[in-house]
Amino acid sequence: MQNKQLNDLKEQAKQLDRNDKLAYKLSEFELPTELIYLDGNSLGPLSHSAKKRAIEVVEQQWGADLIESWNKHEWIGLPKLTGNKLAELIGAEENTVICCDSISVNLFKVLSAALLLQENQSKKQKPRVTRNVILSQSDNFPSDIYMAQGLATLLGENRCKLQTVENRCIEQELQENGDKISVLMLTHVNFKNGDISNMRAITHLAHQKGVMVIWDLAHSAGVLPLELEACQVDFAVGCTYKYLNGGPGAPAFVYVAKRHQKGLQQPLSGWMGHKQPFAFLHDYEAANGPEQMLSGTPPVISMSILDASLDVFDGLNMIDIREKSIALNAFFQECIDHLLAGSALKLACHVDANERGSQTSYTHAHAYAICQALIAHKVVPDFRAPDILRLGFSPLFLTFEQVFTAARLLADIVRDERYLLPEYQQMKEVT
Amino acid sequence: MQNKQLNDLKEQAKQLDRNDKLAYKLSEFELPTELIYLDGNSLGPLSHSAKKRAIEVVEQQWGADLIESWNKHEWIGLPKLTGNKLAELIGAEENTVICCDSISVNLFKVLSAALLLQENQSKKQKPRVTRNVILSQSDNFPSDIYMAQGLATLLGENRCKLQTVENRCIEQELQENGDKISVLMLTHVNFKNGDISNMRAITHLAHQKGVMVIWDLAHSAGVLPLELEACQVDFAVGCTYKYLNGGPGAPAFVYVAKRHQKGLQQPLSGWMGHKQPFAFLHDYEAANGPEQMLSGTPPVISMSILDASLDVFDGLNMIDIREKSIALNAFFQECIDHLLAGSALKLACHVDANERGSQTSYTHAHAYAICQALIAHKVVPDFRAPDILRLGFSPLFLTFEQVFTAARLLADIVRDERYLLPEYQQMKEVT
Repeated sequence: MQNKQLNDLKEQAKQLDRNDKLAYKLSEFELPTELIYLDGNSLGPLSHSAKKRAIEVVEQQWGADLIESWNKHEWIGLPKLTGNKLAELIGAEENTVICCDSISVNLFKVLSAALLLQENQSKKQKPRVTRNVILSQSDNFPSDIYMAQGLATLLGENRCKLQTVENRCIEQELQENGDKISVLMLTHVNFKNGDISNMRAITHLAHQKGVMVIWDLAHSAGVLPLELEACQVDFAVGCTYKYLNGGPGAPAFVYVAKRHQKGLQQPLSGWMGHKQPFAFLHDYEAANGPEQMLSGTPPVISMSILDASLDVFDGLNMIDIREKSIALNAFFQECIDHLLAGSALKLACHVDANERGSQTSYTHAHAYAICQALIAHKVVPDFRAPDILRLGFSPLFLTFEQVFTAARLLADIVRDERYLLPEYQQMKEVT
Repeated sequence: MQNKQLNDLKEQAKQLDRNDKLAYKLSEFELPTELIYLDGNSLGPLSHSAKKRAIEVVEQQWGADLIESWNKHEWIGLPKLTGNKLAELIGAEENTVICCDSISVNLFKVLSAALLLQENQSKKQKPRVTRNVILSQSDNFPSDIYMAQGLATLLGENRCKLQTVENRCIEQELQENGDKISVLMLTHVNFKNGDISNMRAITHLAHQKGVMVIWDLAHSAGVLPLELEACQVDFAVGCTYKYLNGGPGAPAFVYVAKRHQKGLQQPLSGWMGHKQPFAFLHDYEAANGPEQMLSGTPPVISMSILDASLDVFDGLNMIDIREKSIALNAFFQECIDHLLAGSALKLACHVDANERGSQTSYTHAHAYAICQALIAHKVVPDFRAPDILRLGFSPLFLTFEQVFTAARLLADIVRDERYLLPEYQQMKEVT
């Protein structure tokens, strides 16, 4: 490696930073100095607004105003308020998104609701078409698969069975067996390799075959432009603690297309989803809007912090965010290609950053140890079993100089086999 | 009303405070001075330890240590750690309680799991007994009813139907139709009138009839001595934001008796309930312990705050807590009986404080306005539609002098009809 080449890359990074329209956003976060945080795709960082709200909701609202805060500080309206902020970021109409529970729990609601819709539809048809398959990607995030397995076990295979195929075979499966499929449950951006599915084309094909579609936006929301409305998506779920920086385990969200909101039945029908929660009526009657997806009392503190976290997105548009995301990924890759050509570190994602989510994944037999070595030098990526090093490039707080520094460190660790040091080799389960 | 009588009651309050073994606990809370908070049964107050932890989890853990906190600060172990602290307070063995989601969502898990257990049991029987009824109290908290309705709608009435009867008829129903009942879902302390159900006797009778029992401990946990283990309860759920002071919408808990933990199937089978969540395996395999009740990623900030809130209970025993709870309720009632004999304010709970939860309820045509008038004078009770004034006596932070002051104010408002003032008459939905 020539010094000149290093200097050229460093100069290029500086130039990219000078032209970065989003550079001013970095100052809105509380990130420790010296840290290069490439795990915003797993847990986004704390923002000033989130920190301020955390203190406010705990000390002032809960601490001083107590029960009165449900009205005075609009706790009761938080799921909807936050949902509407999220709607703007994912190309959804007002009053189609609500914030609540976890992705897993929300998936169960929409999977069940979609199955029941299809069953009711089927009763009206002659001859009757029996659709009982939930189709998904075999490399979908495991929790999504597990939730569908749980629903299938509960309902029995006459009513529901899960089938998974490779991501690249989804469309073929729809073409060939679409009449047996009730619901297609897909994750938009794959958690390991960042593959992006074609939301518009697949949703369109599924609808042609009479299949309802649920998209999981865990690795898309807040970093990719999305057009749920324009793609006529039926349902979607997503999490808020990754690119949306909502805080650890922040409540998830669920999208229900306007056309499905009337007459929908979701089985986790708790009091917060009732038309009149405080009338304490004996029989459940679903609220009209996306509130019908609520179940129990929401985690107010976590949801308030999320609400404030979303303020960071004020005035931004997803096109600019995506543009920087692609540039960060492409530049990292360029650095590694220069600094580490022909090594055992193999790219484990689409070679074109335009064709994947905001992450770059590599495989290496010592991926876990490499990850530990990077962390020891204040560069934080993450590891996904069995051998994936995953680097997330969250566009709101990363600089191109940081990307250069991280790439250089990774190259040094791999080239010099520093990962073989015993302190990096200790295997331990990580999140 | 004689001044002497007032002075006597005030003296009595002071004497009770002097003898109060739990008086020292008040200093562990952040309550505003001047406020008399009789709504700890709806939202418990902030403690110093909770406030300290809130700042720590946001600023230090999330803010500075970021993703590393899952291991470094044991976020991953929080549901179990907190669950075990709760187990001690409700008479449950270690590793039978886990903290997660809301009561409503947890109810769905245990209702489904219990139904599936019964169905599997039934397949082995000759002749087959078909049990498809969930029996509950007609005045159970509505969300509990709604969740059972949601499950029944999903499964269809061949597999599940909800039946509700008056609380006093539960045992008779078990006696007469026990062979049709699959699951008995009861709330231990009624949210409106505080009625306590006999957990031991009812659970025993249900088991004799082959019925599984789920108890909702929302208004019991942290204020009544409970013996889940000794009563051989099958499942229980409860919330932590009332007497446990865990914070608004703090995560709920779920109890699964040791004898049911193996082979249980709960349908909300997310990755956090998997035996190896980070192995990312394709098929769900439930964890062994109460962790199998987990679904998605927990709300870490809310759960950390709850964890710290529970430290207030260190060194306390539930017998002392219950003793003070009864004394507070009885003394309030005594004050009202003296100060307001024969008024339109009617006791709407068991006359003996030993026979009800830690609350005293009254009915009055103007209950909502009375509630507003009290709040305007810094005494905070709550209102439950249509006409109930509910006063919660949380034993860890209330003094008998406060109880006297509150009773005196209530008496003044009712006797002088101050609730007729327009500012108190405006009706608005409250939580």
